[in-house]
Amino acid sequence: MIAIDAQRLLGRIRELGAVGRDGEGRLTRLAASDTDRQGRDLFVGWLRQAGLDVAIDRVGNIFGIWQNPEITGQAPLLIGSHIDTVIDAGIYDGCYGVLAGLEVIETLKATGFSPSRPVAVAAFTNEEGVRYTPDMMGSLVHAGGIDAETVLAAVGTDGSVLGQELARIGYAGDREPGFLTPHAYLELHIEQGPVLEREGLPVGAVENLQGISWQRITIDGVANHAGTTPMSMRNDAGHAAARVITFLLDRTKASNAPTVATVGTIRFEPNAINVIPSRAVFTVDLRDPDEQRLQAAEAALAAYLEQLAAAENVTVSVEQLARFEPVIFDLRIVEQIEAAAKRRGLGVRRMTSGAGHDAQMLARIAPAAMIFVPSVGGISHSPREHTDDAELVAGANILLDVAAQLAK
Amino acid sequence: MIAIDAQRLLGRIRELGAVGRDGEGRLTRLAASDTDRQGRDLFVGWLRQAGLDVAIDRVGNIFGIWQNPEITGQAPLLIGSHIDTVIDAGIYDGCYGVLAGLEVIETLKATGFSPSRPVAVAAFTNEEGVRYTPDMMGSLVHAGGIDAETVLAAVGTDGSVLGQELARIGYAGDREPGFLTPHAYLELHIEQGPVLEREGLPVGAVENLQGISWQRITIDGVANHAGTTPMSMRNDAGHAAARVITFLLDRTKASNAPTVATVGTIRFEPNAINVIPSRAVFTVDLRDPDEQRLQAAEAALAAYLEQLAAAENVTVSVEQLARFEPVIFDLRIVEQIEAAAKRRGLGVRRMTSGAGHDAQMLARIAPAAMIFVPSVGGISHSPREHTDDAELVAGANILLDVAAQLAK
Repeated sequence: MIAIDAQRLLGRIRELGAVGRDGEGRLTRLAASDTDRQGRDLFVGWLRQAGLDVAIDRVGNIFGIWQNPEITGQAPLLIGSHIDTVIDAGIYDGCYGVLAGLEVIETLKATGFSPSRPVAVAAFTNEEGVRYTPDMMGSLVHAGGIDAETVLAAVGTDGSVLGQELARIGYAGDREPGFLTPHAYLELHIEQGPVLEREGLPVGAVENLQGISWQRITIDGVANHAGTTPMSMRNDAGHAAARVITFLLDRTKASNAPTVATVGTIRFEPNAINVIPSRAVFTVDLRDPDEQRLQAAEAALAAYLEQLAAAENVTVSVEQLARFEPVIFDLRIVEQIEAAAKRRGLGVRRMTSGAGHDAQMLARIAPAAMIFVPSVGGISHSPREHTDDAELVAGANILLDVAAQLAK
Repeated sequence: MIAIDAQRLLGRIRELGAVGRDGEGRLTRLAASDTDRQGRDLFVGWLRQAGLDVAIDRVGNIFGIWQNPEITGQAPLLIGSHIDTVIDAGIYDGCYGVLAGLEVIETLKATGFSPSRPVAVAAFTNEEGVRYTPDMMGSLVHAGGIDAETVLAAVGTDGSVLGQELARIGYAGDREPGFLTPHAYLELHIEQGPVLEREGLPVGAVENLQGISWQRITIDGVANHAGTTPMSMRNDAGHAAARVITFLLDRTKASNAPTVATVGTIRFEPNAINVIPSRAVFTVDLRDPDEQRLQAAEAALAAYLEQLAAAENVTVSVEQLARFEPVIFDLRIVEQIEAAAKRRGLGVRRMTSGAGHDAQMLARIAPAAMIFVPSVGGISHSPREHTDDAELVAGANILLDVAAQLAK
């Protein structure tokens, strides 16, 4: 049984994780920033060292392609993820999958594996969506879900324009986005959740990915003096918002369904201790692997808001910020992941991805699936993000096995 | 029956209300700012025009004293309020009471009234407390409730030091705070609430002032990914905060007591749409004219927080930001206000002040009471603050009548 070079993979994860540290040691490589350029340069250097053809498309997606000269016209197996990060990030999210993809190709090459199709590794632009909206941007463009011109005109949180920034850092490539249509797509990723750790399993075969509904809810009441306005004469937007949060999260908690609901942001206006809030703005993040259940959760929220507006004499407006239907991954590949884990004696379970990933975009144009490894404490998007070395290596070997099968 | 000069009073309210406008016409005269200096200069000019002795103490409180040379050694009747404002203020809050006090003195002088004691008008520093903490600062110092040195060292929201700012604008006076111990204290003010308007009454005889309890509550849970963390494995600080708000406001609303509860500010951390809040910080403003009921509301909140911390596995900490016991005003003066209104054929009711006022500080050292006039829509701290001219004049005439009785 062949195996990846653990030393090389772990070393590269740490080396890339050292790029983009600020004075306090915090890791940040936002898409198309100077630190992203440094990370990209390091990665492209490794692609060239490995003898791969480097292709960069107009939205900055990077491909390293093992183009066996003896085979032509075959759709490539693509392994991908991203190397941009959130602010104050960990070193594994995205980078692990990209570097493991490169590791798999180098291992296959070194062991004399003879593929029946090209094998490529991709690093997609702006998966995190911190600087530019939408997230999973590069893979969405690659899959034809949004126009390249639209995303190149995206204005960042810092007022920058993505197209200009890509040109500035030297990653506005010449390939047309979507130039490479994969035979299949694989993505290896840390779970970013607590399930594998809780069950003591090293591998997850990801069979689907939750649908996501993001809404911003604005409640308008009337600002008034906190001391002089009797309770019966108030239109308290903050109180109404608290009712919505309590209703939504209690309902979700009480249900046996896998629906999750989160209110992560909130803001009151005028936000003064002695003024009844005239306005409350908050976001709702609803997820479910089943589209009908997700729609039921949205409908329950909408019905509650309607009833609340009448009962509390407030005005409610709702803005849909994002909506993705659940994604079902390719069953055959999921079974191959399970089988590979069993052959290596590793515990495995089928599972749902709670987070969004580039794989959900690629699933639009190719059979796709994901492999998860445990996240300690379920933590990600944090310097405390951690997966044990042995588990990182085990996950990469599963990726190797499945890639070898798909490229045979 | 003598009467104040309505034209002069209304003209001065408008003239002072024009001082401190920004480019967009917004009125802001924060304590000891450049615009506060302009307002003070205008007021002091009017005091001198009226032939009053001007005295300024070390914390910037301004007094205009009608010191009849034939009477000595008598404690003065003091009429006061403030001329500092909130940000984007209306023109009546505080200024109405100060200018009506001046108007009453000028009217008494002009009509040959012969007082048995001095009559003085005061404008107290930093009643609003927007730039420096605590609010009602000047009157609190005057009443001996806090040290002058302490408040002069107060650092503002803009990093300025009050003592330096008062010196800069020329209002660090030479009189020792508290130099003037009043025989009685009167304050005329807009209601800042909806009660008089709702009942169609032009005058309120304020018999007491609510006790106030301000708390800042911090709930700590655990930040986690909104998509990957099952509902059962969450410690959601935001959800816990919403429960507290719902509990507190529902309880207060359902009660027949006059207790009012407001959650005016809130903040989540990290405040990201797809991250479960690790921390929620919000303020609670509780008020009641009865100390025992106020304590009962505080105790109910504390008990709920204790139970919540255990049930939701979050940590709760509470910081008391302010605490004032209810103030009971002087019954004899309240009766004089009622009698004066009736003599002038004006509807009147006894009422509670929901807001804090300088009068609550002066009540510590002298018999005190307040007169309220209606606020349209209960609105204050806003450019939409409004009281009809006829009601402003009527209120000032009641102040005149009661002042004449107390100074006879």
